[in-house]
This record gives sequence, C-alpha cells and structure tokens, in this order.
Amino acid sequence: MPKVAVVMGSDSDLPVLEKAIDLLADFGIQREVRVISAHRTPDAAAEFAKGAQRSGVEVIIAAAGKAAHLPGVLASMTTIPVIGVPVKSSFMDGLDSLLSMVQMPSGIPVATVGVNAGENAALLAVQMLALKHPELEEKLARHRTEMADAVREKDVKISSQMGGR
Amino acid sequence: MPKVAVVMGSDSDLPVLEKAIDLLADFGIQREVRVISAHRTPDAAAEFAKGAQRSGVEVIIAAAGKAAHLPGVLASMTTIPVIGVPVKSSFMDGLDSLLSMVQMPSGIPVATVGVNAGENAALLAVQMLALKHPELEEKLARHRTEMADAVREKDVKISSQMGGR
Amino acid sequence: MPKVAVVMGSDSDLPVLEKAIDLLADFGIQREVRVISAHRTPDAAAEFAKGAQRSGVEVIIAAAGKAAHLPGVLASMTTIPVIGVPVKSSFMDGLDSLLSMVQMPSGIPVATVGVNAGENAALLAVQMLALKHPELEEKLARHRTEMADAVREKDVKISSQMGGR
Amino acid sequence: MPKVAVVMGSDSDLPVLEKAIDLLADFGIQREVRVISAHRTPDAAAEFAKGAQRSGVEVIIAAAGKAAHLPGVLASMTTIPVIGVPVKSSFMDGLDSLLSMVQMPSGIPVATVGVNAGENAALLAVQMLALKHPELEEKLARHRTEMADAVREKDVKISSQMGGR
Amino acid sequence: MPKVAVVMGSDSDLPVLEKAIDLLADFGIQREVRVISAHRTPDAAAEFAKGAQRSGVEVIIAAAGKAAHLPGVLASMTTIPVIGVPVKSSFMDGLDSLLSMVQMPSGIPVATVGVNAGENAALLAVQMLALKHPELEEKLARHRTEMADAVREKDVKISSQMGGR
Amino acid sequence: MPKVAVVMGSDSDLPVLEKAIDLLADFGIQREVRVISAHRTPDAAAEFAKGAQRSGVEVIIAAAGKAAHLPGVLASMTTIPVIGVPVKSSFMDGLDSLLSMVQMPSGIPVATVGVNAGENAALLAVQMLALKHPELEEKLARHRTEMADAVREKDVKISSQMGGR
Amino acid sequence: MPKVAVVMGSDSDLPVLEKAIDLLADFGIQREVRVISAHRTPDAAAEFAKGAQRSGVEVIIAAAGKAAHLPGVLASMTTIPVIGVPVKSSFMDGLDSLLSMVQMPSGIPVATVGVNAGENAALLAVQMLALKHPELEEKLARHRTEMADAVREKDVKISSQMGGR
Amino acid sequence: MPKVAVVMGSDSDLPVLEKAIDLLADFGIQREVRVISAHRTPDAAAEFAKGAQRSGVEVIIAAAGKAAHLPGVLASMTTIPVIGVPVKSSFMDGLDSLLSMVQMPSGIPVATVGVNAGENAALLAVQMLALKHPELEEKLARHRTEMADAVREKDVKISSQMGGR
Repeated sequence: MPKVAVVMGSDSDLPVLEKAIDLLADFGIQREVRVISAHRTPDAAAEFAKGAQRSGVEVIIAAAGKAAHLPGVLASMTTIPVIGVPVKSSFMDGLDSLLSMVQMPSGIPVATVGVNAGENAALLAVQMLALKHPELEEKLARHRTEMADAVREKDVKISSQMGGR
Repeated sequence: MPKVAVVMGSDSDLPVLEKAIDLLADFGIQREVRVISAHRTPDAAAEFAKGAQRSGVEVIIAAAGKAAHLPGVLASMTTIPVIGVPVKSSFMDGLDSLLSMVQMPSGIPVATVGVNAGENAALLAVQMLALKHPELEEKLARHRTEMADAVREKDVKISSQMGGR
Repeated sequence: MPKVAVVMGSDSDLPVLEKAIDLLADFGIQREVRVISAHRTPDAAAEFAKGAQRSGVEVIIAAAGKAAHLPGVLASMTTIPVIGVPVKSSFMDGLDSLLSMVQMPSGIPVATVGVNAGENAALLAVQMLALKHPELEEKLARHRTEMADAVREKDVKISSQMGGR
Repeated sequence: MPKVAVVMGSDSDLPVLEKAIDLLADFGIQREVRVISAHRTPDAAAEFAKGAQRSGVEVIIAAAGKAAHLPGVLASMTTIPVIGVPVKSSFMDGLDSLLSMVQMPSGIPVATVGVNAGENAALLAVQMLALKHPELEEKLARHRTEMADAVREKDVKISSQMGGR
Repeated sequence: MPKVAVVMGSDSDLPVLEKAIDLLADFGIQREVRVISAHRTPDAAAEFAKGAQRSGVEVIIAAAGKAAHLPGVLASMTTIPVIGVPVKSSFMDGLDSLLSMVQMPSGIPVATVGVNAGENAALLAVQMLALKHPELEEKLARHRTEMADAVREKDVKISSQMGGR
Repeated sequence: MPKVAVVMGSDSDLPVLEKAIDLLADFGIQREVRVISAHRTPDAAAEFAKGAQRSGVEVIIAAAGKAAHLPGVLASMTTIPVIGVPVKSSFMDGLDSLLSMVQMPSGIPVATVGVNAGENAALLAVQMLALKHPELEEKLARHRTEMADAVREKDVKISSQMGGR
Repeated sequence: MPKVAVVMGSDSDLPVLEKAIDLLADFGIQREVRVISAHRTPDAAAEFAKGAQRSGVEVIIAAAGKAAHLPGVLASMTTIPVIGVPVKSSFMDGLDSLLSMVQMPSGIPVATVGVNAGENAALLAVQMLALKHPELEEKLARHRTEMADAVREKDVKISSQMGGR
Repeated sequence: MPKVAVVMGSDSDLPVLEKAIDLLADFGIQREVRVISAHRTPDAAAEFAKGAQRSGVEVIIAAAGKAAHLPGVLASMTTIPVIGVPVKSSFMDGLDSLLSMVQMPSGIPVATVGVNAGENAALLAVQMLALKHPELEEKLARHRTEMADAVREKDVKISSQMGGR
C-alpha cells in the first residue's frame, strides 16, 4: 500500500489539508499526518525528513503559511518529491506563502500547487505514485470521469434553467 | 530507460529549458523535446497529451510565458504528472506566467516550480521517476553531495578571502 | 435574431453572469448558456468552440476564475470574438484570473473586461453585434441615455441634499 | 472596405502599434492612424470619438500608457467597440496602464488586450469585423493555419536538434 | 467665501466624501457637491470642468473608483487644482483607482491623496485656499493643535492604562 | 514674485527635479532648491519646514525614494501645501516610494503626483499659486495650448506617415 | 531591570501590541507604553526619541500603519535599536506599512518584523537585550522549549486523530 | 572585541554584503564571513547556528534571495538576534526574498532590513552591540554626524548650483 506523509506547519493549517487526507484515503493510500514546524521544531523537521524514505513514505505533502519554509526545509533533507501547499495567510491572500515556496533555489525543487489547494496536492501525489503503482491509474481515470460528469450535469441544469430567462 | 517529455510553448522558451534537458541527460533519462502551443496548435497539444503515456512518457515538463496555459492544458488531458515552469515574461517578471500555472482549479494539478526554474523542473522529474526507478536515487544523492561540496568550497574561499578585509 | 454564447467554467461563476444574461435578453439577443470547464471537460470545450459558429453563435462570453484558461482555450479553436470575464477569486481579488486572461500570446486575442464585469461583457458583445445588426445601435444609444439620466438624477439629489449640510 | 481607427495617446506609443497597422493592412482593412491625447487634447478626443461612426470607422484601437484613460474616454462617446492596448510604462511594466483600462465602470466597456499586445488588438478588430464582412473569416482561418505551421516547423527543428543532445 | 467643488463618479462614493464635506463646512468653505461620471456623462463632465472657474470654484476634489478617470478628465479641461481621492474598489483595495489617478501623463497633474482619504483631500484643499485666503491659516493651525491634543490625550490614557499591566 | 521650495531627500534625486526647476523658472517663479534628508538630517528638515512660510515659501515640492518620508515629515511641520514626488527606486519601480507618500494618515495630506513626475509637481505648484497670483493663469493656459499644439503636430505627422503604409 | 519603549502611532494600533506588552512583562522587562504620532505630534516624537536613551530605554518597538513613518522618524533621532511593526492597514493588508518601514534609506535602519507581528517584535527586543542581560538567555531558551512542546503536543493529537480517518 | 557573523546563501550575494563587512571593520567589529545554503547545506546551517553563540558570535547577519529561508532557518536554531537582508532577485526586485524573510511565524523573529540593504544590516548590528559595548555608541554618533555633514555639503552645493538656473 503506497504511503504519503501529510505535514502541516501549524494545526491551524488542518482545514486546508482535510480534503487532501480524505482524498488520499479514497485512493487507498496510507497517510502519515504530522504537525511539524520548520522554525519551532527544526530538529523534529530534520528527523522526519531524513527518516521519511526509510519509514516507507514515498511522497510528502507539506502545507504552511506566511514565510512558508516547511516544504523547502523538508525538501533539503530528502530526495522524496515534496509537494508544497501555500496556505492563505492574512497578508495578500497568501502571496507570501506562495513565493516562499515556489521560488526555491536551484537544486532543491518544491512541487508547488495553488494557494490552499490541498485537494490538488493529494491528486498530484496520486499521479506521482501511479508511476510505480499502476493500479492507481485506473482510479485516477475514474476520478477524472466523475469530475467531468459533474460538470456536464451542471451544464445541463444551468443551460436549461437560464434558457427561459 | 525512463522518459520525460520537455515541452515549450514557443521556441523562445528554449533557453529556460536547455539546462533541464542537459540535466535529464546527465541522469540517463530519455528526452522528447517538443514545441507545442496551447493556443496556436491546440490540436497538437491534445494529440500529444492524450498519446503521451502510450508513447512511454512518464513525466511532462512544460514551460510557457504570459497567460501560460500550456501545462494546464496538457494536464487536463493526461494523468501523467505535469511540471510547469513559468517563463519570465516582460510583465512583472513572470507573475502572469506563475499565477496562470499554479492557480489551477481543483481536480487538475500542475506541479509548479519557480520562474525560469528549468533546472528544478528536471530535478523534480527525476525525483518522481526515482519512485519507480530506484537506480535514480543514488544519482540524486550524489547530485546533492556535489551541490553541497560546491557550497562548502565557496564557503572556504569567501570566508578566508573576507577574513583579512 | 443575433446569438451570444455565455459560458462559465464553473456553476459558481453564475452570479457574475446573471446580469449579463438578463442584459442580453433586454437587447433581444438569443443566449446559449453553458457550463464548460477548460480543464475538467476539455473535450466539451473543444466540441463547443469548434461548432459554435456553425450553430449560429456570433460572439462568445466566457467567465472563469483563478488560472482562468477558459476564454483562451475557446479562442484558440474559433475565430469568433471571445470576451473574457475574469472572476474574482479568493486570491488577490482575481489578479490571477485577470492576468491568465488578458496576457494571451500573440495570435489569439481575448477581449478582456474588468474583474466580475459581466455587465460590461454583455454590452461589449452588443457593440460588436451592432456592426452587423444595425437595429442594436439605437438600443445601445438608448441604454447610454438611460445611464446618463440615472447619473443626472443622482446628481440633482445628492447636490441638493449635501448643499444644506 | 472595412475601416479601423488606430489611435495612440502619444507618438511614443507608435512602436506598440506598428505591427497592428501592418497586420490590418495585410487583412485589407482601411486604417485611420491618429495621435490624440485624452488629457492634452480632450476636445480632439471628443470630436474624433463622436464623429468616428459617421466617418466610417467600425472599430477603434486605442493604445495608451500610465493612467491610460484614452480608450475609456473614447468609449464614453461612441458605441463603436473600442479595443484598449495598455502600453508598458516605466512603472511595474504597465500594471498602471492595464488597470486604468480594463477596470472600466459598468456601462462603458473597453475590450482590453495584453500589455503592448498591438498585434492581438488588430486580430481582435478583424474578428469583430468578420461578423459583418464574411470575406475576413477565410483570411482569419488562413492566418491561424500559418501560425500553426510556424509552430510545427519549430517543433520539428527543435525536437530533432535537442534529440541528440 | 472660498468655494470648493466636491465631485464623485458615483453616488456610492458619497461615504468617502461626507467627512470631507463636513470638514470644508467647518472651515467655512462653500461646497458645490456633484455626481458626475466621466464615462456615463462625459458631456456633463466637460461642461462642469470648463465652467468651474467662472462659477467661482477654486479647487476641485474628485473621488472615483476602479478605472478612476474622473479627476484626470476634469483636470484636462481646467487649470484649477484638482485633488483626486482614489476610492477603495473591490479589486486590490483600490490599487486600480490609485494608479489610474496618480500616474497622470506629463502636463496634467492630479494632486492625489490616499485611498478613501476624503478628509485629507478636504484639508489639502484648505491648505491650497489658505494661500489666497489667509484667514484659513489660523483655522488650519488650530486644527493641527486639536489633532495633537487628541493624540496626547490618548498617550496619557494608554500609557497609564498599560503601565500596570 | 511667488516662491516654491524644491526639496530632495538625496542629490541622486536631482534628475527627477531638474525639469520641475526649469519649468518653475519658465513660469517666473522663484525657487529655493534644497537637499534635506528626513532621516539623516531630521533637524534640518524641522528647521526648514517650520521656517518655510516665514521665508516666503508658498508651496513645497519634495521628492524622495524608497521609504520616502520626506514630504510627510515636512507636511507634519507646516500648513503650506506639500507636493510629493515619489522617486523610482530599485524596488518595484518606486511602489515603495509611492505608498510611503500617498498613504499619509488622516490630518496631514501630501499632494502626491506620479512616480518621477517632477514636471507635474511643478505644474501643480503653479496651479496652486495661480489661486493667489492670477497672472499665472494666463501662462498656464498658454502652456496647455502649447502642449495641445505639440500633440496635434504629431497627429498630422504620424497620421499621414502611417496612412500610406 | 531592562527597559523597552513600546510606541504606537495611533491608539487603534494597540491590539497589535498588547501581546508584545504582555510578553515583555513575562520576561521581566520594564515597559514604557506611548501613543506618539510621527505626523500629528512630530515634536513629541522628537522629544521622546532624543530623550529615550537618557531615560533608560534600551530598545524601541514602534508600530504604525499606512505611510508608517513612526519607526523611521524615531530611528533618525536615536541610535538605540528601533524595531518596526507594520500594522495591517485597509490597503493591501499593510503592504504600504511594510514598505514604508523596511525600505529605509542607507544609514538609518529599522529592524522590521512581519505585518502585525507584535509578538515577534517583543521577542526580538528580548534577544537584543540578552546580549547585555544574560539572565534573559535562559528565559529565551525556555520560551523556545515551550513553543516546541506545544507543537509536539499538537503533532501527537492531530496525527492520531487523523490516523483513523 | 565584539563579533558578528555575516552569512550569505550563495557567493553571488557577496556584493550585497561587502559594504556591510567593511562597515563592521570600520566600527572595530570582528567578522566571521560564511557561505551557507539553508537548502543545499542544511547540516552546515544547523551546525553553524547551534554553535554560533559558543564561538563568540553576538549577532548574525544573513543575506539570501528568492525563497530566502536562510535567516529564518538560522534564527530557528539560536537565540542570538538574526538580521535578514533580502537580496534583490530576478523576480519583482526581491519581493519574494523580502516576504520570505519578514513574514516569519510567531516565535522566531528575523530583524529584516530593506532589499539589498547590507549597509543598514551592519549598522543595525552595531546598534544592537552598543547595548553591551558602550564604546560603540560614540562611534555610532560620529557616523550619524558624518552622514549629516555629507547631506549638508550636498545641500550647499546643489542649492547654489540650482539657484542661478
């Protein structure tokens, strides 16, 4: 069973990640959920990142806000792919979080998704895991089909509803 | 041999990707390099994205500037991971490219790296491929060591050079 | 009877377009209202855009948020004018939507109006249609007069109300 | 022969519009090229905008920089479609021009294209004119084909050139 | 009695100007309060601006939001000083209004104050009028003293209140 | 003879003000040109601002860059109108200078013009002075006419030059 | 007993500083809390800053919003370290406050912390004071330990709570 | 002799720090100059930060660009004051560096100075050290006097030079 670590810099970031955790569960992926602060618990961050691969983690999702160093700090200590979720802060809707994450220096990439985009982080993790676990491909295809069906349903509803307007 | 497609929206984006292409080669990864415009050649984009997996591509790197739709358009038609490289445009240093890429809607993620960060896109692709191709892990570790050595060398040089100042 | 397609990337964008739909109706223009996601239903987007002209659509209004590719994707597959309405997202009030729309590459223009400016999109569509359907010109002139009258009324009210202050 | 007015707020904006003027010529469209400042020659602006339709102008392209009021000022005095081209200023790459143009109040739309996107302004004008002048449609289709061919040519060149790298 | 015109682009801008109107009254200045839209009533704007000086107006305060052309449009048709008040719009807290106002082209200045800073616009008008009407100087000095006293009072209150904390 | 003080925070700001100084001279206005740093010479700033009115200064123009406190600091110590010229810094083209100037607290306005807009600062000063010195009105009107003539000349030149293209 | 002055530009800034004041008290540091406006009470600002050192103040914390000159103005008149706290204004979440503070000219630094980061200002002040008052070091170390413990506690709680999900 | 560590994330940041290093030398402060990358040499960063105090370092100056985590990472592992210098990156003039530094989470402050403001970092360090080393106070006062004299000299030069203009 593939395994993803979902790490947040503060427990206040949990709402951004709950959907991601549920989505990973739906895809049959094992989750290790952690609260680790790059700045308040730097040793815990190092211990986690350096031991992640050994403990079976294949992808790390890390969410943080403001000067959102967490995914970069983890990425500097492992070669497992790290997906960064910038959390909407109270400053410019998370522009600080986004830039602190995506603008990593050459050599240590963070796969950044949109602000508060926990769901996309989970799907990206699944897409990465599908490289190795082909059974996930079919599930991803089904998920795409469901999303398309949902849009099409709304299309039918709205277009008829607005037609007579 | 693992395979990565490196796609650019315009041949003017090539300089951003050359280092990425070379780096992939250094890691022993097969490259398919393409120029595909999401807007000028939408059919070519669809054909490429839908056929990518069948033709052995495991990860897609896509670079584009301004309203940089290319990685998102490709991602909408495949479940292979798509890494987006926002290209520095003449407007606000590529803020347009970055936001057009990273702010994807729920359901279709693009793994975005920094503006012009072709090198990090290549490394992220290798990190993803290492999930399936364990021989890449050792190469990644060596690459990290070489980067660290380069920093340490400069540390020694600068600290002694600046010491007597 | 002239015809305009009003397309939204998600049904959550409907409030931004309702006034536009009503305004088009006021001008006696036929509406085709659709929900099409550039990323979740790319095939529906292609089918719609490629068939629009044949089905009598003369102008397309497309609203979307965040990495708002929808109008650009449609514009890449038709030569009918496409008007883009950036939808106010939760990130910097829709700066992401605006830039993703207006900064289209050379060759494929999107006629972009202001953030959430559904009403202006409708009026712009009417102005375009008036090139071919001269009966719309008179209606546009009347609409301008009504707007001016409304301002003048408020001018009279406020200036007298504030005069004695 | 269809006719487009190409107006600039200052002669320093000419380089942004030259390609647009040439492109309009290629499409067989008559051009009226003008330098009119919304602020330094407000009367000339009013005279031009109010008389444009009578003198056969069907679409107006207006380029301006900084507090780029020109297209909005013209649009307030005619119901002909006005396309705005924000000119890259020395401040934040034209963010001022872009916002001054695209954020028009309800009632008076300006069809805004990208910063310095003179070429797209011309193409958008042609797309609008094609509603009335169907002979332009074929030319637009050919232009699209030529653009696609140019991309494909570069695709072949770059992909083979980079293949052996 | 000195006279200031207070013009707003829309009656929704009134709350931003009410304090200004009251402050002008406190300083014994005659007010002409108007609602004039640069875009919906361009002729009214021209008529007002061209006639302002003749009707005794010495300074114009103009508030507007979004593509806030009003003060610039008025300034282009009179040499009376025009003070611009950018109104906080729903887009980036009025960055659009601010840039549309302050970035006027060479030759036609607008004296811009802060976003929603109606009060400062009134005080600036009084400071300008004091050049000609020296009786205002004393009132300005008194106003400054009152403001300083208010700060000092709070200083005493807060510093004692927080002292025992 | 009316008198304007032109103050810069650093001699490196001189190029932004040279045109302003020349323009004031053209209008027959006496200039006092000063280099005063709000931060490096706070006492000189206080001495200058507090004594300005007594020494015959009627308007102050103050230019500064980065955390551009100079006009605000001067304005806090005099009731003479202070015009602020944000100087283009090396950070975001002077956004820091602009915001540090225009966003003054309630009670102490700074009449802010565009980034590097020394010329507009001078014209605004003349417009203020014309309230008291009516001979300046005629000169302002002539200046407007000359600007309009210059635009019209370019209009003739460009429109004929581009006509045959 | 070490002493820190906590100065705010307006009593509305108090909520941003209350935690800072309490934290300083926890560390056994004497507080002088003041309301001083750089613009409304410039003389009080000068008097305070010039006398601060004599009255035993070792570090100044100054909070202000909008054109937040207060810390810079104080810093220009003392060589005691000044810590600036940009207060979240109603414009772009305090980007104006931040830039007005951090972008000080060469020669007069302000130690800037994050927007509304009163707590970090207090901790930074304690870190500075610990250079001279070694008894604070131990307290700082304990504070770090407490923060780390709080994170670890949440880690245990969230990881177990989310485990069964 | 007091001691300051000057750390840069990359040797390309050296030009930003050279003036700082020289200024520290002028003040008679011992320098330890280091190149340490938070991401490429995380272990070196930890080793340095944890051992800094023991090796006599009293203040740390850390400069970095882009996702500029270095000062925050160091600050998380020591209670010595850390001064952050955001380095002007190729993206929005270092807005990424600034936000990544100044927006630190509660608990771990970084004393941030302006973009590329190496000189101010050095002066801030001296101001902090002067708390413990009173001999630095006199030097700081002298430095202030020299700066003021330099401004006054330029004031004399420019004001006479521009007087006759």
